[in-house]
Amino acid sequence: MLIDEGLELLGDDECAQLLAAGQVGRVGITIAGLPVILPVNYAYFDGDVIFRTGEGSKLHAASSRAVIAFEVDGFDADHHAGWSVLAIGRSSTVDDPIERAQLEQQHVAPWAGGARDAYVRMHPEMLTGRRIAGTG
Amino acid sequence: MLIDEGLELLGDDECAQLLAAGQVGRVGITIAGLPVILPVNYAYFDGDVIFRTGEGSKLHAASSRAVIAFEVDGFDADHHAGWSVLAIGRSSTVDDPIERAQLEQQHVAPWAGGARDAYVRMHPEMLTGRRIAGTG
Repeated sequence: MLIDEGLELLGDDECAQLLAAGQVGRVGITIAGLPVILPVNYAYFDGDVIFRTGEGSKLHAASSRAVIAFEVDGFDADHHAGWSVLAIGRSSTVDDPIERAQLEQQHVAPWAGGARDAYVRMHPEMLTGRRIAGTG
Repeated sequence: MLIDEGLELLGDDECAQLLAAGQVGRVGITIAGLPVILPVNYAYFDGDVIFRTGEGSKLHAASSRAVIAFEVDGFDADHHAGWSVLAIGRSSTVDDPIERAQLEQQHVAPWAGGARDAYVRMHPEMLTGRRIAGTG
């Protein structure tokens, strides 16, 4: 077991499984020079993180072509246990109609109201995961 | 009710209440030029977000004096409902012994193993919250 600063490190396969099982993650991005974390519902498809934004939204502008962080986690407050997976990579908006049609099969309908017609796709260049075993 | 990109905006009081009620949040920060999101357990004390890190850790180095994002959220996947609160502000490590003794009363013992003796304190300069009402 690999340990990083007191946390168990997860392997690539486990990170990918946790990403595939999640529904809500958080995008870390810079908007107007400030760090911002915004939750999104997402899909994990073909090794990439896919989420939707509104054309003209702050998130859309910031993730059109940028290096972004994407995080999913789960915690058990009673046992002080939990895990997190962090993916970092370059995001891009999906303009190609064939690719877009493929992503529409992934059912990443946004939970929020408002127009969110743009797809953002991020291929993780770095994928890391950590676990706190907790107090049992 | 104020709406931002399809999401209901929360007022300052509600944001503060949600921060005060939470146990785990996520720090958004730049490490080696890359955006990173790391979960931490925290306390909300006197209007500030307090969490602990290890001296010499990546998070400690990055949050010694930086503008960081801090996010808490809660989601109900069955109803596609949820909320999030985002605080942005300058972080600093707590070196003053009197202030440190005061923070030790706040019981932000880290869940993770390993030495996490440093306190980081962030005063939110920007505090915003959003809610998705969901499908009921």
